[in-house]
Amino acid sequence: MTTLAIDNIGQLATGDPNTGSGPLGVLEDAAVVIEDGRIAAIERANTVDADEVIDAGERAVIPGFVDSHTHLVFAGDRAHEFALRMAGRRYEAGGIRVTTEATRTAGAEALRQLARRRRREALRAGITHQEIKSGYGLSVQSEELICQVASELTDDVTFLGAHAVPGEYDGRADDYVELVRGPMLQACAPHARWIDVFCEQGAFDADQSRAVLEAGREAGLGLRVHANQLGEGPGVQLAVELGAASADHCTYLADADVDALASGTTVATFLPATDFSTREPYPDARRVIDAGARVALATNTNPGSSYTTSMSFVLALAVRDMRMTVEEALLAATSGGAAALRRDDVGRIAPGARADLVVLDAPSYEHLVYRPGVPLIAATIARGRVEWLDPDLSRD
Amino acid sequence: MTTLAIDNIGQLATGDPNTGSGPLGVLEDAAVVIEDGRIAAIERANTVDADEVIDAGERAVIPGFVDSHTHLVFAGDRAHEFALRMAGRRYEAGGIRVTTEATRTAGAEALRQLARRRRREALRAGITHQEIKSGYGLSVQSEELICQVASELTDDVTFLGAHAVPGEYDGRADDYVELVRGPMLQACAPHARWIDVFCEQGAFDADQSRAVLEAGREAGLGLRVHANQLGEGPGVQLAVELGAASADHCTYLADADVDALASGTTVATFLPATDFSTREPYPDARRVIDAGARVALATNTNPGSSYTTSMSFVLALAVRDMRMTVEEALLAATSGGAAALRRDDVGRIAPGARADLVVLDAPSYEHLVYRPGVPLIAATIARGRVEWLDPDLSRD
Repeated sequence: MTTLAIDNIGQLATGDPNTGSGPLGVLEDAAVVIEDGRIAAIERANTVDADEVIDAGERAVIPGFVDSHTHLVFAGDRAHEFALRMAGRRYEAGGIRVTTEATRTAGAEALRQLARRRRREALRAGITHQEIKSGYGLSVQSEELICQVASELTDDVTFLGAHAVPGEYDGRADDYVELVRGPMLQACAPHARWIDVFCEQGAFDADQSRAVLEAGREAGLGLRVHANQLGEGPGVQLAVELGAASADHCTYLADADVDALASGTTVATFLPATDFSTREPYPDARRVIDAGARVALATNTNPGSSYTTSMSFVLALAVRDMRMTVEEALLAATSGGAAALRRDDVGRIAPGARADLVVLDAPSYEHLVYRPGVPLIAATIARGRVEWLDPDLSRD
Repeated sequence: MTTLAIDNIGQLATGDPNTGSGPLGVLEDAAVVIEDGRIAAIERANTVDADEVIDAGERAVIPGFVDSHTHLVFAGDRAHEFALRMAGRRYEAGGIRVTTEATRTAGAEALRQLARRRRREALRAGITHQEIKSGYGLSVQSEELICQVASELTDDVTFLGAHAVPGEYDGRADDYVELVRGPMLQACAPHARWIDVFCEQGAFDADQSRAVLEAGREAGLGLRVHANQLGEGPGVQLAVELGAASADHCTYLADADVDALASGTTVATFLPATDFSTREPYPDARRVIDAGARVALATNTNPGSSYTTSMSFVLALAVRDMRMTVEEALLAATSGGAAALRRDDVGRIAPGARADLVVLDAPSYEHLVYRPGVPLIAATIARGRVEWLDPDLSRD
């Protein structure tokens, strides 16, 4: 069996407080040995023997980011809509239809190429595991295709037929919900692990959302909810009541929502790049964390409200504008994302875990937030494979 | 003479409204011909004949960013101070002393290597021209060395001996001002084009600032002022009164400051990445622009309050939080930066201008703001030389 070692790591943030110091379990002068796509051992620097060695040059290493909320599979460009919104127009959920039209007509191979390109971009951003949602097809055929394309890139595919009511169902939202719960779910469930619904004024109400989620659960899917993005609403409490793995957005929370999150097993997943791009206020993460709820941070990569793959940007917003510490933010984007996907094989650097890790072009993980906008991802290793290596890495 | 062409440009934002449509002078399907480090011609796509051709693949091309405010030459790491500040501690100008200590003891070659590394990072971020300030030496010898190192990287060196009062002059600020105006200025002026002063509560007051600036002017240097960063103060009006090229920060402006900027020739240079990293409010650019003043955007790359080289990040903040349009922000970071440095050879793509341009991995310049945190700089050409070419550029 071939082994790979990342050696000469100046600072290793394992994400496991039992392994090292502080909440991030930090070790100094470490090495990580990888075998068969898994982490085999964590050792002292310059003591390991492996078939291949990457010299981290005393840089910092962190777990690969776990991005628990993306919409990678779509076609079309909405940059100009974004620019207009920044010049004063408000974000509305209806914009999804623009992307739906482009996605429906794009064809399988074009969608696949676009998604792969975005996946590549995410790897360069240090994201080693991604959830990917459907939701820009909104017809049985197109949703199935999107789930299939997504399943080629991740085992965390989410069926989101209930993303918006498509134009041909105008005024007949309940009929569309029946389609989603019936033939569309039947076509998509084989490719998916999760079902999700956009529970929001202008999208799906509490009854419709519950109907979709319950049908998904009967089909064997886990539950996720787009909740409380544009205003307070029933989404968060519905998610907790139904035992959803995650309630995503959580921008507008009533006290009862925070209480529900604190008392349940549902992770509150914040998507601050969305609040950035829609000019909404940032969620108050401090309030949710201090109440005792589990939190995650994700990119929400999508063309309408958050076209970024930069988890570092998300971290910077979380620390600057959501009052999270750097440590809380980094945990939320790694083991927090894993918790939101109910898995423990990713999001931390520990023997037996997937060999997903990132070498930063920096001496400490704090630089991820200290140096906003700077591409600090020097190398991304996913399942033990070097997926990105910065051409300047060996310059020094 | 060898010629280089950037051909097959989908969208060329020249920055010159007389050349194309809109404030950015946009042309579709264009090519740029470069000769001897200068732009020789702008042509239709796929019609040019050149010794070497870079195929932009229908991507967008913009002028290289002109970063009119940086502090590239320093040693030491302040990531942890940043993390503590984000956890609640307020930014204070006195932190400069931490960097001064590290810089004074670093030695010429270490400083040179650090500065070159940051220059390389800036080129990757699409910055083709930079102003570089001294200000972390605060002794005659150390300031002179910093100016000399900076002059190896740019012809826009700024002498900023009046960045902070060093520890050995505690309680004797006026004596330090005399040192700055006298022997320090004499040692640094030969390497510099500009003089600058940190006019702020806790740094230098109006009289001290005026004394420094007037001495600089007598030594043949142009004037710049750090003004109104942490509160309202005399900086902006002093800058305008003395005809400074730029008043930088402008975070806290009284009506009289805005009036002064609108009536004078001093450019208001905003540094929103600083307000991000110090958690100050963002300046109200809309108010300043609507009053008729000229504005620029710059990174303020420095270890204490803005350790980023990402002009794209600066643009995103300007559009999201300072109510600038995408077009205004891009102009402020190119021709606006050039105006703040009183030069017209950079900041636009026009025959005769320096061949400084950036290929974006995107179909339009709007993506720079639409896709925050994503490294979209596919290629950077400075003085006709390809300084950065993304390894993925030719993948499609």
